[in-house]
Amino acid sequence: MKGISVGLLGMGTVGCGVVKIVENHQDKLIHQIGCPVSVKKALVKDLHKERSVSLQPDLLTLHSEEVLDDPEIDVVIEVMGGVEDTRHYILRALQNKKHVVTANKDLMAVYGSELLAAAAENKCDLFYEASVAGGIPILRSLVDGLASDRITKMMGIVNGTTNFILTKMDNEGSPYLEVLKEAQQLGFAEADPTADVDGLDAARKMAILSTLGFSMNIELDDVHVKGISAISSEDLQYSKKLGYTMKLIGIAHREKEKVEVSVQPTLLPKEHPLANVQNEFNAVYVYGEAVGETMFYGPGAGSLPTATAIVSDLVGVMKNKRLGVNGKSWVTPQFQKKLKEKEEVQAKHFLRIHVKDEVGVLSQITNIFSNKGVSFEKILQLPLKETALSEVVVVTHHASLQLYENLLDELEKLDYVEEIKSSYRVEGEVAV
Amino acid sequence: MKGISVGLLGMGTVGCGVVKIVENHQDKLIHQIGCPVSVKKALVKDLHKERSVSLQPDLLTLHSEEVLDDPEIDVVIEVMGGVEDTRHYILRALQNKKHVVTANKDLMAVYGSELLAAAAENKCDLFYEASVAGGIPILRSLVDGLASDRITKMMGIVNGTTNFILTKMDNEGSPYLEVLKEAQQLGFAEADPTADVDGLDAARKMAILSTLGFSMNIELDDVHVKGISAISSEDLQYSKKLGYTMKLIGIAHREKEKVEVSVQPTLLPKEHPLANVQNEFNAVYVYGEAVGETMFYGPGAGSLPTATAIVSDLVGVMKNKRLGVNGKSWVTPQFQKKLKEKEEVQAKHFLRIHVKDEVGVLSQITNIFSNKGVSFEKILQLPLKETALSEVVVVTHHASLQLYENLLDELEKLDYVEEIKSSYRVEGEVAV
Repeated sequence: MKGISVGLLGMGTVGCGVVKIVENHQDKLIHQIGCPVSVKKALVKDLHKERSVSLQPDLLTLHSEEVLDDPEIDVVIEVMGGVEDTRHYILRALQNKKHVVTANKDLMAVYGSELLAAAAENKCDLFYEASVAGGIPILRSLVDGLASDRITKMMGIVNGTTNFILTKMDNEGSPYLEVLKEAQQLGFAEADPTADVDGLDAARKMAILSTLGFSMNIELDDVHVKGISAISSEDLQYSKKLGYTMKLIGIAHREKEKVEVSVQPTLLPKEHPLANVQNEFNAVYVYGEAVGETMFYGPGAGSLPTATAIVSDLVGVMKNKRLGVNGKSWVTPQFQKKLKEKEEVQAKHFLRIHVKDEVGVLSQITNIFSNKGVSFEKILQLPLKETALSEVVVVTHHASLQLYENLLDELEKLDYVEEIKSSYRVEGEVAV
Repeated sequence: MKGISVGLLGMGTVGCGVVKIVENHQDKLIHQIGCPVSVKKALVKDLHKERSVSLQPDLLTLHSEEVLDDPEIDVVIEVMGGVEDTRHYILRALQNKKHVVTANKDLMAVYGSELLAAAAENKCDLFYEASVAGGIPILRSLVDGLASDRITKMMGIVNGTTNFILTKMDNEGSPYLEVLKEAQQLGFAEADPTADVDGLDAARKMAILSTLGFSMNIELDDVHVKGISAISSEDLQYSKKLGYTMKLIGIAHREKEKVEVSVQPTLLPKEHPLANVQNEFNAVYVYGEAVGETMFYGPGAGSLPTATAIVSDLVGVMKNKRLGVNGKSWVTPQFQKKLKEKEEVQAKHFLRIHVKDEVGVLSQITNIFSNKGVSFEKILQLPLKETALSEVVVVTHHASLQLYENLLDELEKLDYVEEIKSSYRVEGEVAV
């Protein structure tokens, strides 16, 4: 069997990781694939940029056709990022009967179904394990490992930047902006952190996960998103006092063939396995009807972890090629998309409000909860120093999102409610 | 495509789980496999035993040939347990060109390589995901998900019974025998718990994991085993005081092409992800050179979780059948087995000894450590109430197992050492 030639689109951190793994683990790759693997060409924007691997000078090119149209290249690995140009490149690679491995969640969340269909049409593989949770082989686990089960819920810490920030804020009591700055200095947050801290990056990954896990075409617009930038030290302190840890959690939940998918700051009982996922690590918790609770934990980003997932996909492509079964692993979604209405999304909530410190206010608030059909598990009232206000903190019982939003609207109208300081979803029960 | 017929060997708890999943998830199976799946025959010892699923009366048989020799049966699922008879049944099934899915770790740990070779020879699949860590798709993750990486270390909590017992002992301060009895009453331990509490069950799983993870034929006899029955409440209390949690850990470690595999009670820093795995849950921590740390967590046993892994393997068999590639996924081990000598196994240890409470004893002990080449990270000496003894607790730095055993031999000889109470391996550093 002749060697396998790979073309890279992009040669940044992850691309360099791919080159390193292909070089360092060549023996293992040959053992599994039955032939050597080499990187033949890499599309870059700058031929002379300093890179963390030494490369043959003729390896790099500024011209996409040298990767996409070279008949000797078997597999294209896309690690350049971006959406529109990248989509066209990948489509062209597939039309040229090249298999594609991508780490691009932005692309897969938006054009995944189009690209997968194009791959199947061209009898090519399109694998994207690295697009969700970096080094954790979560997509394979959903598709193969839990193939016989019916997955009903997935909860994921799928963004390392925000988990790093929340872990730091929680451990050190520091405010959001200070920790964000530190994360930027340490390279855990981008100069423009918007996509991470606003939850968009996590939302893309949840769209991919829920599409696979529920076998239903979930799009990015279907994911309700709320980021972490409004989380205060007080919120974290109250969470802790009540026995919870705050995490940015992607939740995908299926009940009676209808699903909800969201990304939002969420209070988890501190004994919950996801609550112990620290710093930049990622984890995906999967509930199956038969298997029960499982969790997959590991590095969510980074050059080598992400490259591991990419090269493992490459091994998958090559195994399929040896067996002559490329382009056959994709399965069209089994179900029509049905999203839950707000009346059907049941959740518990944490609510913190400032109210006028007057006699009878608490009893009026409890009355409003009761009128609006939201009961509570816990309520605390504490005077706020040097003000005429007091702070009311509530953890509700399960209520529909519709009822809960009606309640918030009502509270906002009230004279004696000074401000709704914060409101977060709560998952699970704290042990008493 | 005609439907798929499955024959079961055994119809106990897990067998009934398989029947339930095949029935309840038929839609998903049809969607993935392209045809219906049905159980045609099941070999049992007692036709009239009460079972948790209702079965057609002609489904059960007392005669193995009705499963093994029926040309209409495509796949044999082995959930009867046992080793010698089972081995012959599986070999016969393979000779009759039936694919085999098994949950039998005892069998795979002893005859795995023979059976896998027989499967390849007969162009049949032999899958055994359920044999390690029940519902956790760990074998696939090692083989496919981390295909491109070089795994250097695996640490696993792979026996639910012992983890349940240690969790209870730790939380409640109760002695081993009392908790074992409770576990037996709750159905978490067998009437004869030997294979679990002596570590043999975990050792079988570690043999399977390290064979796959290191691509080296590791046999059960290669696994050094120590069980949990000698662990005392005092050991757990000291562990906790020093910042550790005690778990029964399977450790498989590769350095410079040589490996060590063991199962033994081990102190882990309480922040370690494995330290937080509670009760009957299982988890496998995997270190890859490129990916770094990952962990796979879930139920290690139970009817439906184990059956999920089995039916997912069945889906794998059927996907391969549709593609015409059965019997081709097995890869012979890449490396010759090389086991580390005791001089090459480096570890930290926890040691608790009772010594005569006399002036100068501690300094003599520290001298012996130093003479024997074992240095320590921590040493505590406490008087023992109502005796003329004191208790010395040591956590050593890394030392070779050979040096450490020499030290223990020397300590045992000494007049002023009353008793070596306990000695355990320590993994990782406790945060100061």
